[in-house]
Amino acid sequence: MNTLSIPPIDTSAVEAAFARQRILAKVPGSLGKLEALSVRIAGMVGSVTPSMKDKCVVLFAADHKIVNHGLSRTGADVTHIQTRNFVQGGGTINAFTRNAGARLRVVDVGVNYDFGDLPGLTSRKVMWGAEDFSEGPAMTRDQALACLQVGIDMAREEKNAGLDIIAAGEMGVGNTTPSAAIVSVLTGASVEEVTGRGSGIDNEGIRRKIQLIKKGIALNKPNPDDALDVLAKVGGPEIAAMAGLMLGAASLRVPVVIDGYIAGAAAGIAKGLYPEVVNYLIGSHNSAEPGHRLIMNHLGLESYLDLGLCLGEGTGAALFFPMIEASTRVLSELRTLPELNIPV
Amino acid sequence: MNTLSIPPIDTSAVEAAFARQRILAKVPGSLGKLEALSVRIAGMVGSVTPSMKDKCVVLFAADHKIVNHGLSRTGADVTHIQTRNFVQGGGTINAFTRNAGARLRVVDVGVNYDFGDLPGLTSRKVMWGAEDFSEGPAMTRDQALACLQVGIDMAREEKNAGLDIIAAGEMGVGNTTPSAAIVSVLTGASVEEVTGRGSGIDNEGIRRKIQLIKKGIALNKPNPDDALDVLAKVGGPEIAAMAGLMLGAASLRVPVVIDGYIAGAAAGIAKGLYPEVVNYLIGSHNSAEPGHRLIMNHLGLESYLDLGLCLGEGTGAALFFPMIEASTRVLSELRTLPELNIPV
Repeated sequence: MNTLSIPPIDTSAVEAAFARQRILAKVPGSLGKLEALSVRIAGMVGSVTPSMKDKCVVLFAADHKIVNHGLSRTGADVTHIQTRNFVQGGGTINAFTRNAGARLRVVDVGVNYDFGDLPGLTSRKVMWGAEDFSEGPAMTRDQALACLQVGIDMAREEKNAGLDIIAAGEMGVGNTTPSAAIVSVLTGASVEEVTGRGSGIDNEGIRRKIQLIKKGIALNKPNPDDALDVLAKVGGPEIAAMAGLMLGAASLRVPVVIDGYIAGAAAGIAKGLYPEVVNYLIGSHNSAEPGHRLIMNHLGLESYLDLGLCLGEGTGAALFFPMIEASTRVLSELRTLPELNIPV
Repeated sequence: MNTLSIPPIDTSAVEAAFARQRILAKVPGSLGKLEALSVRIAGMVGSVTPSMKDKCVVLFAADHKIVNHGLSRTGADVTHIQTRNFVQGGGTINAFTRNAGARLRVVDVGVNYDFGDLPGLTSRKVMWGAEDFSEGPAMTRDQALACLQVGIDMAREEKNAGLDIIAAGEMGVGNTTPSAAIVSVLTGASVEEVTGRGSGIDNEGIRRKIQLIKKGIALNKPNPDDALDVLAKVGGPEIAAMAGLMLGAASLRVPVVIDGYIAGAAAGIAKGLYPEVVNYLIGSHNSAEPGHRLIMNHLGLESYLDLGLCLGEGTGAALFFPMIEASTRVLSELRTLPELNIPV
């Protein structure tokens, strides 16, 4: 991974957008949280009237050998089956990106399956699934760096195609397990606090999941002050690529929407590498996974939707895209009170 | 107003949509509240794969002479100025309907201003503003019926133009005052519980607003068991038209999204006239107005968004349109687990 530079927020655009919200043709403050959101975005983009028209979700797929301990309700084959399904348009993230007028890019960064030459799939496979981190590191440091670079490359390619806002999605059976490990290490919360049902395991499954995560952390001793160390030892390829996408987008002043638990864990890694990345991150929904609120607090980000979503894929972020665009349309499409001869 | 017939929900479509949600290519239940919402809509429309593509907000504008007591932060002129602004495309509801791919229709049902022949405005003026209900009834029973009919007519016209989902919006300086009166009478809650800051009045303004509402209710003695009586005595033209739109849409099996406090009050009236209308109503957001939750509970409807919105115009409903469409796209656009050879 090459060194990145993340530019500071444009504070003059923030101030101008804040002032503009007070004179637009509506009751000041009447759009609640959406007004503050639009002002933040103005600062990211460096414009009082940011456009959020060109939207993209980049979905990274990878496997996790730790699921062989029976950590998921579904078989590991579901990773490659669903990845193919996304490429062919039949998944929830396809429906939600179409709904938002966003494009979807599907990237194989670490699936334990040979897709051959599958049209529509971006093949950037770094490894054939993360290693079982209860028995050793999930990735080498070099593999983690290579996956981060895949994400950075995707951000740059999408920006070159025209891009206003982006989100990282994922497909990886078992990936709430490394996410919980990352969130525990980064926030200092207990493994019990951050471990949930994932795709729907039972109480015995949760107990086993907690034991394995504890074993993996004790064995690998990830250093909380070295995010790359945490990522390599208890993370996974798609989590690394998601973190890379966030860093790449932030370096290009592109706002990044955080989906659910796995995206939150990836954002925690990104923040550990470059703390200023959080200036370009936007929360979307409260995941049903119990550790989600902890990592969002760690990031200092607000979540806007509370609908009980826990699917991943980038679906919560894609669902929130139209609201983000609505918030910024206010800045650019409303007449002002002075234009209407209404006293401010 | 002619007699309406509101058809029952299609329970077989409900059952089929519920069953379908369990076999689609995602973790069952992982879309939280959106899954139940899609199932409800299937029952309204009578299809397992309902389309929510053709969307419309009908915004009704009217004045309220009770504002002459100083009940609003803004002057009464703002009703006609903003109505013109909406026709010309420069308001928040314009930005939000464009964002949702919805059309907006603006209807003068009771503005105290002569628009002449303003292109783009539907002129169905029944009266020149509601009378001051602290001194007598806001409308005659016939005027209330005429305003209800305007709403019903709009629902029918829009359905004829092609319509999958609709919402009623409003512009009327001072209309949180009649809305609070309606909600107090219908729910039995005290006037204090249901009266808020509207466009931003101070504590002294709220005290005056509460006094006037109490005076109007004591003077007019609206009968809670006769919704038309409540509507005529302490309501207003746009509230009546919104209730009519809801009834008209429900009679045509078109789902109706409830915006904020004024729409909630109108829905309360609609329910009083035809209780089965609630089967076709969908909540959107929790308004910052304190009585909103009470009327939504009275309707038995859930709100999905909690963003601190309190603008009206139909903005909260328009903001929620894309999420509703996303929820129904799941039913029609996802492949099934059997199609992917994944065990259910």
